[in-house]
Amino acid sequence: MSRAEIIVVGREILTGRTLDTNSNWLAKRITALGGDVKRVAVVDDEIDSICGELRTALRNNSRLIVTTGGLGPTFDDKTLDAVAMAAGLPMELNPQALDFVKGRYALFTEKGFIDTDEVTSSREKMAIFPKGAEMLPNPVGTAPGVKLWVGKTLILSLPGVPKEMKAIFEESLLKELGDLFGRRVFREKTITTNLGDESKLGEILDKVMREVSDVYLKSRPTYFGKDVRLEVTLTATGDNEGEVEARIQRAISEIEKRLPP
Amino acid sequence: MSRAEIIVVGREILTGRTLDTNSNWLAKRITALGGDVKRVAVVDDEIDSICGELRTALRNNSRLIVTTGGLGPTFDDKTLDAVAMAAGLPMELNPQALDFVKGRYALFTEKGFIDTDEVTSSREKMAIFPKGAEMLPNPVGTAPGVKLWVGKTLILSLPGVPKEMKAIFEESLLKELGDLFGRRVFREKTITTNLGDESKLGEILDKVMREVSDVYLKSRPTYFGKDVRLEVTLTATGDNEGEVEARIQRAISEIEKRLPP
Repeated sequence: MSRAEIIVVGREILTGRTLDTNSNWLAKRITALGGDVKRVAVVDDEIDSICGELRTALRNNSRLIVTTGGLGPTFDDKTLDAVAMAAGLPMELNPQALDFVKGRYALFTEKGFIDTDEVTSSREKMAIFPKGAEMLPNPVGTAPGVKLWVGKTLILSLPGVPKEMKAIFEESLLKELGDLFGRRVFREKTITTNLGDESKLGEILDKVMREVSDVYLKSRPTYFGKDVRLEVTLTATGDNEGEVEARIQRAISEIEKRLPP
Repeated sequence: MSRAEIIVVGREILTGRTLDTNSNWLAKRITALGGDVKRVAVVDDEIDSICGELRTALRNNSRLIVTTGGLGPTFDDKTLDAVAMAAGLPMELNPQALDFVKGRYALFTEKGFIDTDEVTSSREKMAIFPKGAEMLPNPVGTAPGVKLWVGKTLILSLPGVPKEMKAIFEESLLKELGDLFGRRVFREKTITTNLGDESKLGEILDKVMREVSDVYLKSRPTYFGKDVRLEVTLTATGDNEGEVEARIQRAISEIEKRLPP
């Protein structure tokens, strides 16, 4: 089982003010690491909403849950409270995270980005974690990422600022996630058919998917108008590259022999 | 109550192959029409997953649920089956939709886009609706949109191809949704503060939000480095423009009087 879910926290996405690109970036990486993203949820900056999605993802037996957003020092940053609530854990000051936050404010004050390195209560808030959670250093900003095991599920909480999220993910998580998903191999291949009619191709794909059941097929038009052509993207996961490639090749042959000459 | 939820259907989004921009487009429009988008869910092309999200959205007493994707003629287009399952309705051929689909294939054949206007079973599939659903004409493609009332909830199923989704939405739904949300007014305003430290601004916004409780405040940095400045976006909804504007103005004054000189 390599099920993964992504929870995006932020009202600015629900009003349409901000286009969420974090979940797309994460989905690509998690898929490439062998995970199977089955669900993305975007919710408001409210403890109950975030906690509800976390509970759903835990109930779904996800191996990995990644949250983005809601880790900063302001009143509407509530993700960690929701993680603690969903996991049934108290919140407590994480000394390592407090050192990290202090270090970041000292550095940013020294560089002249901000006025004072005093650790106010709202800055300290970024170091208050669900009990037992680990800190993931943020190479770019002030809010550390948070890593918590709940049974067999790994919950990662990352900031919503894309460059901070990406930096934490790539600095701390690649090896761990590869191991989590048993380093399964993911392959994707796209072919272009000589068909322009989705309903006709659909019948072919339907047959092929029954025959090669462990390759996922998806069709889409490449462009509209007189010269519309349908592409098919084949995706498969497995334990070794050769076997996954072979399966995809088999599905391609099965499609090609059914296409008109 | 003007709660709205969006359900995006498509495996290509969960693998990261496609960036979903439909939910952002819809969120902006629904917000502007007075709706309150509280949740977006992205799920795989599986009846159970889609149905699960629909049931959650119905349980949340949403006034509006919009689905995108999964309406076409191929085996992985399962959205309408999921809508029927969630609503406890059988599927049946919608004669008006069948006429529409026939007309589209006749037109596209005449124009030379496709070879034949024969209505095969997979084409007919696009006209099989949950019992009692209405057809929404698709001005661009072949799959019609679908509109179904379930109690007080309006479920709209739109295609995943962005230009088809947008065309159906703007052709058929603006007036209906305005009425659904009681034509509430939505206003959004962004101001730039003279602060660069989010934790300091957070304390100010916390106080202002307690004082002007019906305006939502959200801060974000405009750029990083030496000259970082924080913006505040204020959003509010109400029944008339003057009152909503006044509330936003009041919140702005409350913020400004707390900022350093």
